[in-house]
Amino acid sequence: MIKDRDIVCRPLSASDFAPFGDVIGLRTIPDKIINSGQCERHHDLANLDFGDDGQAGISIFNARPRSLPYQCDLLECHPDGTQAFISMTWTSFLVIAAETPTARPMAFLTNPGQGINFHRGIWHGVLTPLTRPGLFLVIDRIGDTANLEERRLDRPWRIVAKS
Amino acid sequence: MIKDRDIVCRPLSASDFAPFGDVIGLRTIPDKIINSGQCERHHDLANLDFGDDGQAGISIFNARPRSLPYQCDLLECHPDGTQAFISMTWTSFLVIAAETPTARPMAFLTNPGQGINFHRGIWHGVLTPLTRPGLFLVIDRIGDTANLEERRLDRPWRIVAKS
Repeated sequence: MIKDRDIVCRPLSASDFAPFGDVIGLRTIPDKIINSGQCERHHDLANLDFGDDGQAGISIFNARPRSLPYQCDLLECHPDGTQAFISMTWTSFLVIAAETPTARPMAFLTNPGQGINFHRGIWHGVLTPLTRPGLFLVIDRIGDTANLEERRLDRPWRIVAKS
Repeated sequence: MIKDRDIVCRPLSASDFAPFGDVIGLRTIPDKIINSGQCERHHDLANLDFGDDGQAGISIFNARPRSLPYQCDLLECHPDGTQAFISMTWTSFLVIAAETPTARPMAFLTNPGQGINFHRGIWHGVLTPLTRPGLFLVIDRIGDTANLEERRLDRPWRIVAKS
């Protein structure tokens, strides 16, 4: 039985995720063939925005794997820049995003090979891999500001698999 | 027998690769623990430089896998920006770099979990995965210039495994 605080995961799609950011994955047709025909380039797949004072950086996150059902009791947002996550181990992971910190969030399950890029200021759950090791390449803002708001939820959401 | 045009692969290390760029991988100690203790942040692992007129972009390259020995007959460089490659499938790949297009190159074999970031203007071989699918996340310059020089080699180099 689905309860009031339950959120059922849906497969990640660009249209459903559009209010929150970009889905990073292969296009149906590559933008360009390079390297004497040996390589497809799927070009510029995310809208990056690091503000006037920030710049792009590449980091690695190593997160503890979780499992479903997952108690989501912490949301965060980065007001000063976008943040992209791509699994380094070709695995599915859980993505949680919300219009506001008090709104009902949506939960997405990526396919292997799909990453996401949260737009500036989007409220989202923390990084939640479902397999070990939880290693992700992260492209986000390098700058002098904290660029972080966190909101602990009094009543957690319970993210559940589609039955 | 190692011949004059043979280049023996070496394991990728930050010190050996330093003349050409950065090795992207976990640090011994994470820079920061985030998400209520559930995630390590290994912060800002590459020196990105996209010039005054360029900006960072995230692309995916899908390259045909090669095998060793590999005939290297094409080098390229990107004069206007850095270019980073990280396997999306936790695999080793081959990295070739040279001081000049006519100099003897060096060949590196990454460990799974290691990516690389070529500095601006570094001459390098094309993307050479050794396993299928050859999918890589690429962080490089988005801009209006061609940002590409290519040099076909009359006498190819032959990249060989360490015996």
